[in-house]
Amino acid sequence: MVDAAVAKVCGSEAIKANLRRSWGVLSADIEATGLMLMSNLFTLRPDTKTYFTRLGDVQKGKANSKLRGHAITLTYALNNFVDSLDDPSRLKCVVEKFAVNHINRKISGDAFGAIVEPMKETLKARMGNYYSDDVAGAWAALVGVVQAAL
Amino acid sequence: MVDAAVAKVCGSEAIKANLRRSWGVLSADIEATGLMLMSNLFTLRPDTKTYFTRLGDVQKGKANSKLRGHAITLTYALNNFVDSLDDPSRLKCVVEKFAVNHINRKISGDAFGAIVEPMKETLKARMGNYYSDDVAGAWAALVGVVQAAL
Repeated sequence: MVDAAVAKVCGSEAIKANLRRSWGVLSADIEATGLMLMSNLFTLRPDTKTYFTRLGDVQKGKANSKLRGHAITLTYALNNFVDSLDDPSRLKCVVEKFAVNHINRKISGDAFGAIVEPMKETLKARMGNYYSDDVAGAWAALVGVVQAAL
Repeated sequence: MVDAAVAKVCGSEAIKANLRRSWGVLSADIEATGLMLMSNLFTLRPDTKTYFTRLGDVQKGKANSKLRGHAITLTYALNNFVDSLDDPSRLKCVVEKFAVNHINRKISGDAFGAIVEPMKETLKARMGNYYSDDVAGAWAALVGVVQAAL
């Protein structure tokens, strides 16, 4: 199941190009991207806050150092994934490593899918006129690899 | 205690310069660096294998996909730390996030210090004539920040 999701991403030059192009924008400010993604998640899917009780008051944004640490670290995971696109076995192993802690936190593949819309909104905000639904679809496919590993 | 360790690193231009200079070499091959560091750890401190039972047979190196995923992900954490050197509050929050999973695995600050010598050997191997004990000392200071957070 993970293999199929990896093959879908790594086997598509269009998906990889959209991920790399958008990552070029998102990575220009790693911290702001991570914080925006988490903020969008809590706004669009407040039900997911139950998975983040360790972080305390997530409404505080960057002023919450646990949320800030989580947001920045998350963005480096995305960097790791994007750097792995030309090596399917590498993408699989780093996603499976990423999945370990989420499995420990009992986050299912379905539950992890809650990040797709917040990611789409983050892409729209950061890419402006360069945004397209194909870009959001590419990220949904990458999220699909994580979901398959959960 | 974390604040003091962060201040030692972020307050020293010499330490930051040594970290950045050596990271330039280490990051040229993220995956090889991570695998070498883990291999050196298991060779020099075989007692630490008890912390990595999840990974299975670590003697297999890169062929062990769990070890490979761990090694690559670890190296992105180092990247995150090095990128944070000019922002003490950022370094603190990402190190504290990094510490969470190690605390869950019951790895103490003392136990985490086992990585210092393997890191030194990794630096020697990757930097060759550019290696110096000051570089190893800079990494020991950064490891000290993690130790303080554990």
